[in-house]
Amino acid sequence: MTDRIAAPALRAKVTSAAEAARLIRHGMTVGMSGFTGSGYPKAVPVALAAHIDAEHQAGRPMKIKVWTGASTGPELDGALARVDGIELRLPYNSDPVARERINKGEIDYLDMHLSQVAPMAWQGFLGELDVAVIEIVGIRADGSLIPSSSVGNNKTWLDRAKGVILEVNRWQNPALEGMHDIYYGTALPPHRVPIPLVRADDRIGQDTLRCDPDKILAIVETDAPDRNAPFTPPDTSARAIAGHLLDFFAHEVKVGRLPASLLPLQSGVGNIANAVLAGLVDGPFDNLSAYTEVIQDGMLDLLDSGKLRMASATAFSLSPEAAERINADMARYRDRMILRPQEISNHPELIRRLGCVAMNGLIEADIYGNVNSTCVMGSRIQNGIGGSGDFARNAYVSIFMTPSTAKGGKISAIVPQASHVDHITQDVAVLVTEQGLADLRGLSPRKRADLIIERCAHPSYRDALRDYQARALVGSYGLHAPSLPGEALSWHQRFIDTGSMLG
Amino acid sequence: MTDRIAAPALRAKVTSAAEAARLIRHGMTVGMSGFTGSGYPKAVPVALAAHIDAEHQAGRPMKIKVWTGASTGPELDGALARVDGIELRLPYNSDPVARERINKGEIDYLDMHLSQVAPMAWQGFLGELDVAVIEIVGIRADGSLIPSSSVGNNKTWLDRAKGVILEVNRWQNPALEGMHDIYYGTALPPHRVPIPLVRADDRIGQDTLRCDPDKILAIVETDAPDRNAPFTPPDTSARAIAGHLLDFFAHEVKVGRLPASLLPLQSGVGNIANAVLAGLVDGPFDNLSAYTEVIQDGMLDLLDSGKLRMASATAFSLSPEAAERINADMARYRDRMILRPQEISNHPELIRRLGCVAMNGLIEADIYGNVNSTCVMGSRIQNGIGGSGDFARNAYVSIFMTPSTAKGGKISAIVPQASHVDHITQDVAVLVTEQGLADLRGLSPRKRADLIIERCAHPSYRDALRDYQARALVGSYGLHAPSLPGEALSWHQRFIDTGSMLG
Repeated sequence: MTDRIAAPALRAKVTSAAEAARLIRHGMTVGMSGFTGSGYPKAVPVALAAHIDAEHQAGRPMKIKVWTGASTGPELDGALARVDGIELRLPYNSDPVARERINKGEIDYLDMHLSQVAPMAWQGFLGELDVAVIEIVGIRADGSLIPSSSVGNNKTWLDRAKGVILEVNRWQNPALEGMHDIYYGTALPPHRVPIPLVRADDRIGQDTLRCDPDKILAIVETDAPDRNAPFTPPDTSARAIAGHLLDFFAHEVKVGRLPASLLPLQSGVGNIANAVLAGLVDGPFDNLSAYTEVIQDGMLDLLDSGKLRMASATAFSLSPEAAERINADMARYRDRMILRPQEISNHPELIRRLGCVAMNGLIEADIYGNVNSTCVMGSRIQNGIGGSGDFARNAYVSIFMTPSTAKGGKISAIVPQASHVDHITQDVAVLVTEQGLADLRGLSPRKRADLIIERCAHPSYRDALRDYQARALVGSYGLHAPSLPGEALSWHQRFIDTGSMLG
Repeated sequence: MTDRIAAPALRAKVTSAAEAARLIRHGMTVGMSGFTGSGYPKAVPVALAAHIDAEHQAGRPMKIKVWTGASTGPELDGALARVDGIELRLPYNSDPVARERINKGEIDYLDMHLSQVAPMAWQGFLGELDVAVIEIVGIRADGSLIPSSSVGNNKTWLDRAKGVILEVNRWQNPALEGMHDIYYGTALPPHRVPIPLVRADDRIGQDTLRCDPDKILAIVETDAPDRNAPFTPPDTSARAIAGHLLDFFAHEVKVGRLPASLLPLQSGVGNIANAVLAGLVDGPFDNLSAYTEVIQDGMLDLLDSGKLRMASATAFSLSPEAAERINADMARYRDRMILRPQEISNHPELIRRLGCVAMNGLIEADIYGNVNSTCVMGSRIQNGIGGSGDFARNAYVSIFMTPSTAKGGKISAIVPQASHVDHITQDVAVLVTEQGLADLRGLSPRKRADLIIERCAHPSYRDALRDYQARALVGSYGLHAPSLPGEALSWHQRFIDTGSMLG
């Protein structure tokens, strides 16, 4: 198997996952690869979890701090959380076991803007990074590392960590080589310079990761697939949302506010995102590009259709079928995809310059268009803010999309006041539900409220919202954005108490 | 007086303010100069207000939409608001008469990120700009305009407006000529390129504003001072806040997280900001620079002390005494100050690149460090978000400062939950009150809460905050950031009902 390791001196460092895991000790901070279910280490974290479990059984304390790119897979977050091995987790998590521990107060969770993780690690106040555990596709003869199906913060972890453990994953397609663009021009102020990227397709770096060979403590060979979650087909609601959005794009092009090929698309994952991308396959827009975090199934279809010229991201996030499709034809896809470090894929400078059309999901929005992306009922973390803040604030048009209700209608996605705010009204230009689309640009708060209730709220909650709005106009301290603080979050309390926001 | 107009063909356009004001008609959108109390037109808005009043007396409707740089003076916002002549106002206001009308629901107010005003006007969805009314210092022989004591959005208003009215203000020092740096390289995507500024002192543009002479409808000569508000001397609380902050800077330099000359400072106005700047005069840091919105009294003292090498901003915001000082010695100050368009002074790309140390005020922060900068009791607009979002999210260190109580102790600046959010926890690194400083970097929500209550809250509210916190740990839906939605905003409701947050 060591044919993936072309640097002879490094072959001697090949060892077992169990041996490698022993290098990680209680209290250490470990930077792992991984962004969505792609490119995370699959063997060392499992071995580490077993080791932690054994330590706990023996009555010895063992916990670590885990830094990643974003979410990972069950063999990493799930395995470590299950054995209560995580003291602190950053910057993003979607693993259900880890989520449960965070919401029980058992894991400290730092929910960060994904573009800021690398610079903040460099600034130093997150503490030192003891070990990096990074999945790669292979090692070149010169010792440089061929990145895997996600880039995330790998460059920074490799640079900052005192020691490095590599997982060389044979499952990953060797034809990934050449797809990546690793930019080494970032720095701390006062040494920062303009990032020389002006088109989504620009390559500004190199195709491998650098790593000081003296820091490499161990190399583990693996052959395990990424966590490729099954494709979620768009339902009626997702298709309705996509329909509203495609009408909006057509209108913006017609009035000259968007070019005919739109602007670089940023799109999340999930069935609404896939419905929008599917809609674009059949839509009138050609020569599209994407500057986004992840390349998901819908993006692949859009590439295949010829409508999408190219996609830039930091990771794949594919179903097993799509992973197979891309693996079977990687050399061809490679020329139309670029994977970058997440500090570049999500960089405010670049998102603003390119003028991305940002499309993100949400948990709830209030009548003024403040968006809660992270905390159910204001306190229970779902996943995290991820890149939504990087994109929403700097986008050319910042769009948020959601079904108008959840839990079979017992939760309204439109509420009098957001129970937690991730995106302020200034950063929310367009709000879409299956009910309709509200173009909020240029509107003052009271007009935003009228439009959001009229266009986006579910009919079963519309009257209650209007009733709140009418009473707020009487009882509010000021009428810039009328509110009743004593009642504004009562829908959430009602849900906690009764299981439904409905009165 | 026409000696300030060196372009002979333009002298024929000189007219009275009353005549010029007649060019503005009901329903028009007017882009005015002005940023804080500097460089706003002083004659035409007053004449316009008189005209609007006469129209209203005659039973005819007349209202306009007013766009500016930021706040202006009583002769603009005050005069127009008093006669109910404003339909919509953007992007920032601090005039008490206009504020009152906004909070009565009589003026639509768009509270915008100051960096986004120009690009959003170019995008077109704010509507067309009928007339620009711009104060300048003079007109060169080639027709180019010498900017006044603020730049704001003047470049964009001159470019976008169908017609232009100029106010040539003889009160403004002619030695302002050469101080400005007007960058003409911005564009809409997909035509944006890197902004070539890498140091706060870089000049990347030209020293005058361009204006198509055919668009100039009228020129009015004036001789009126800027609204130079009296200097507010630092009180005990402001000096305590400054003390905590200077200790923090010293510590950060000591541990190597800030260079000895710090990083470019952004500072608001008011007595806390002045106390910080006064502290820096006596502090150990040399060779400082500022990349900020306004140059206020404290900044001038810091320049005079030799500690501040140079300051970049978009406007002056000086007391009458400081205005006199600067006017008496403008040629010397000119080499150490640069005034830029606000899309550049506040550009996220540049703030991130330079790594500004951002220092902003607030109305309230909650125990997790969400900051409300704009809406008292969640609904009553005070001024606006201004540039605080541009700076806070992209700063190297984002600092928010406030006395721990207001209204003689009846309002706590630290509350269980912010009644309105302008800055999310991710964008609030350090919180300072006269009680102490909380360095929140790298801390999860529950740890942030402990530190904020311990270090920043006023003793008279500390127990109530701890009590809320303890009960939230029991009754919260999730424990990531524990909250009790039914009670979280009860302090605000109590203030509205009883005039005090104290139970």
